[in-house]
Amino acid sequence: MSAPTTPDLLALDRAAQDLLFRAARTANTFTDEPVTDAEVAAIHDLIRYGPTAYNGQPLRVLLLRSAAARARLLPYLSSNNRAKTASAPLVAVLAADVDFHERLPELYPHRPQARDWLTDRATRVEQARFSATLQIGYLLVGVRAAGLAAGPMAGFDAAGVTREFFPDGRHEALLVMNVGRPGPDSWRERLPRLDTEDVVRTL
Amino acid sequence: MSAPTTPDLLALDRAAQDLLFRAARTANTFTDEPVTDAEVAAIHDLIRYGPTAYNGQPLRVLLLRSAAARARLLPYLSSNNRAKTASAPLVAVLAADVDFHERLPELYPHRPQARDWLTDRATRVEQARFSATLQIGYLLVGVRAAGLAAGPMAGFDAAGVTREFFPDGRHEALLVMNVGRPGPDSWRERLPRLDTEDVVRTL
Repeated sequence: MSAPTTPDLLALDRAAQDLLFRAARTANTFTDEPVTDAEVAAIHDLIRYGPTAYNGQPLRVLLLRSAAARARLLPYLSSNNRAKTASAPLVAVLAADVDFHERLPELYPHRPQARDWLTDRATRVEQARFSATLQIGYLLVGVRAAGLAAGPMAGFDAAGVTREFFPDGRHEALLVMNVGRPGPDSWRERLPRLDTEDVVRTL
Repeated sequence: MSAPTTPDLLALDRAAQDLLFRAARTANTFTDEPVTDAEVAAIHDLIRYGPTAYNGQPLRVLLLRSAAARARLLPYLSSNNRAKTASAPLVAVLAADVDFHERLPELYPHRPQARDWLTDRATRVEQARFSATLQIGYLLVGVRAAGLAAGPMAGFDAAGVTREFFPDGRHEALLVMNVGRPGPDSWRERLPRLDTEDVVRTL
């Protein structure tokens, strides 16, 4: 499972490589220090330039700052995710806007007819999930770019969170993510990663 | 559509912000300079540290280097994507390994039983798509970290590419991506991005 590290072939300097990937870890405990709205805006202002299909940008972020909002989320999390989510400085529900196509005439102005290619809801749901998930990848990198740690949690009832927080029927919850500064014993030992030869093939 | 830029709230330096997001663009033309296997390995060695559900790492990358392999792909692309793909120095088919769970006892060793939670194929397909798409987000950032430009193309027949290149039935093609150094007139004017207040809400 070990590959030679080749950081010097990259244009990105080693400190940034470490900040974003090599030294960054999924956090399971956090300090009390708040994550401000200005930090969230700075992260979004960076990652909004990442590419999406039709430039549709379907990712929507719901920050649960009030105690009441946080309490509404907890029952939908797997039991081992509840305590850390209750105590994280910031909890975000990351969702896809299934009706993102409505803004395409503004976001994709050279081909405004793209909106009409997406009148079928099932097609749109698939596109919205795909591009919003790409954007979650950018967002994880962006959280780390802000010097913060992310704690993404796949273990939750997505359909339940969608019903609870997006009763409008136009959003789908994709991931719940804690954000903050790592607290004591925030992570276990780094898990193994696949080697390039396990992942990349050539034809 | 304009938001104040707030790069100074980020720990990542401005040059890296520009390299990865602010100045980076989707490329539509490329120079002839090759993209080497060493560069691909360096990119993978960076982005393999990005988090995935159960540490499952389902992304698989198929590089189409031979003329014959490239020719097999072109019929599945939308017509406006064919010429640039025929001439790009590197073309990658990005796919999800639907049977990624087989390696979980090795990749998620503290809970090897996770493999058995994923015996249902439909559940696994959804998980594989989600985590592999997150990894495509990391990969796009990694291509840029190598000083290269990516040209992701959503306009292709995914089911056709899956049948053509992954007849084993255990992979699903998610995206086709050209990689290289930008050529002449490689992009149009930057398309508009959503403001933070359009994307982020607080409860």
